[in-house]
Amino acid sequence: MQRYKCIISYDGTQFAGYQVQPSKRTVQGEIEKALNKLHKGIDVKVSASGRTDAGVHARGQVIHFDSPLLIPLAKWEVALNTLLPDDIATIRTELAADDFHARFDAKGKEYRYFIHRSAQRNPFKRHYAYQYPYSLDVKKINKAVPFLIGEHDFTSFCSAKTDVADKVREIRKIEVLEEEDMLIFRFVGNGFLYNMVRILAGTLLGVGAGDISPESIPVILEKKDRAYAGKTAPAQGLYLWEVHY
Amino acid sequence: MQRYKCIISYDGTQFAGYQVQPSKRTVQGEIEKALNKLHKGIDVKVSASGRTDAGVHARGQVIHFDSPLLIPLAKWEVALNTLLPDDIATIRTELAADDFHARFDAKGKEYRYFIHRSAQRNPFKRHYAYQYPYSLDVKKINKAVPFLIGEHDFTSFCSAKTDVADKVREIRKIEVLEEEDMLIFRFVGNGFLYNMVRILAGTLLGVGAGDISPESIPVILEKKDRAYAGKTAPAQGLYLWEVHY
Repeated sequence: MQRYKCIISYDGTQFAGYQVQPSKRTVQGEIEKALNKLHKGIDVKVSASGRTDAGVHARGQVIHFDSPLLIPLAKWEVALNTLLPDDIATIRTELAADDFHARFDAKGKEYRYFIHRSAQRNPFKRHYAYQYPYSLDVKKINKAVPFLIGEHDFTSFCSAKTDVADKVREIRKIEVLEEEDMLIFRFVGNGFLYNMVRILAGTLLGVGAGDISPESIPVILEKKDRAYAGKTAPAQGLYLWEVHY
Repeated sequence: MQRYKCIISYDGTQFAGYQVQPSKRTVQGEIEKALNKLHKGIDVKVSASGRTDAGVHARGQVIHFDSPLLIPLAKWEVALNTLLPDDIATIRTELAADDFHARFDAKGKEYRYFIHRSAQRNPFKRHYAYQYPYSLDVKKINKAVPFLIGEHDFTSFCSAKTDVADKVREIRKIEVLEEEDMLIFRFVGNGFLYNMVRILAGTLLGVGAGDISPESIPVILEKKDRAYAGKTAPAQGLYLWEVHY
């Protein structure tokens, strides 16, 4: 048996999320279907760095799986891409140590959130960014950012449905990029709770819109209550950009 | 009755083309459905500058229609965008003269063809560019361009199925743009025959690949036979960019 590490990219639009669910089209389900075909009917279990929700995209999701097949690395990519649907692509396949784990070994992650600042609906961006037609004060957003950097209990910034006990995470970097009519938030951290990036994005948008003051961020963190943070920004703007090991 | 001119944009991926076809999802069909709702059940016929094929996109298609409704222009956009599916958007609505015709009054058109130069499949570009993994000599392509400029009989560059008698068209400009991993062909002309832009793009790609010499373009034109030009490049790379009046 050889363990493989594989970097994959997917357009989340037509998936009910990453994780396998009965009778739904999922990223994991499609990958396991492709691996089953490649292994002539033998099931191969796939583990990812983490789940992504319905509609959320990945530029660099990382998975691992074990295989008895001795295929040269370059051919894995071709073989998998041939069997995968066209909204999933393998970017790179590597040999991994037997104890490598896509989730437990991840040291950090980068997510990006794309906001299309326009009053004009754009059919080409509808699945790939959150269209935001109102004015935004980017200076205010940049004022809020430093309050989020560092190690904090992010209870206020995660879905109330989360069952993880420890809600302390470290955000290493947040960058606010402006590219033409796009506003992009880059979030780098050691890990993110359920819906955390979307709530961070929604809260920063709330700051930009003037509904939340930059200085209230420490108060929101302090409250440890989801109700105090901003809205959960919609799925289509979110990309799992990179996983760091 | 007031005639309206409307600039629309659509993602062609999920349409069986622009023109209405029985029991197929078409751009015209969706617009006429929206107008029917807006006119409380009264059918409104829509005329476009021309058809686009299944999978072909439009950034600036132009349509016209007549309506007895007295809605301020700014509200037309909102009303239509509310009723249209999210893969069609109205960009601008204008009052038009009673005799304005989106097709017959068009003085020229611009199409763009997008080529994604990469061996790497990209799920986010699959519907919006033609992935071309082989090497291309852009200098050769630029050498071929001048032979296509001007007034020519483009019989060799249109689908054999075309029933138009006069196949003389004028190409005013062809630009070859390189942006990161994208190669973009800009075609500006007084009009284009059926599949003409896709065959021009396929032929220029054939030149770049070394299969067709730049100097053979005049010979191909001369032959007046579709068999001599290059392949028809796939629909997903093509955008009706602008219509000139």
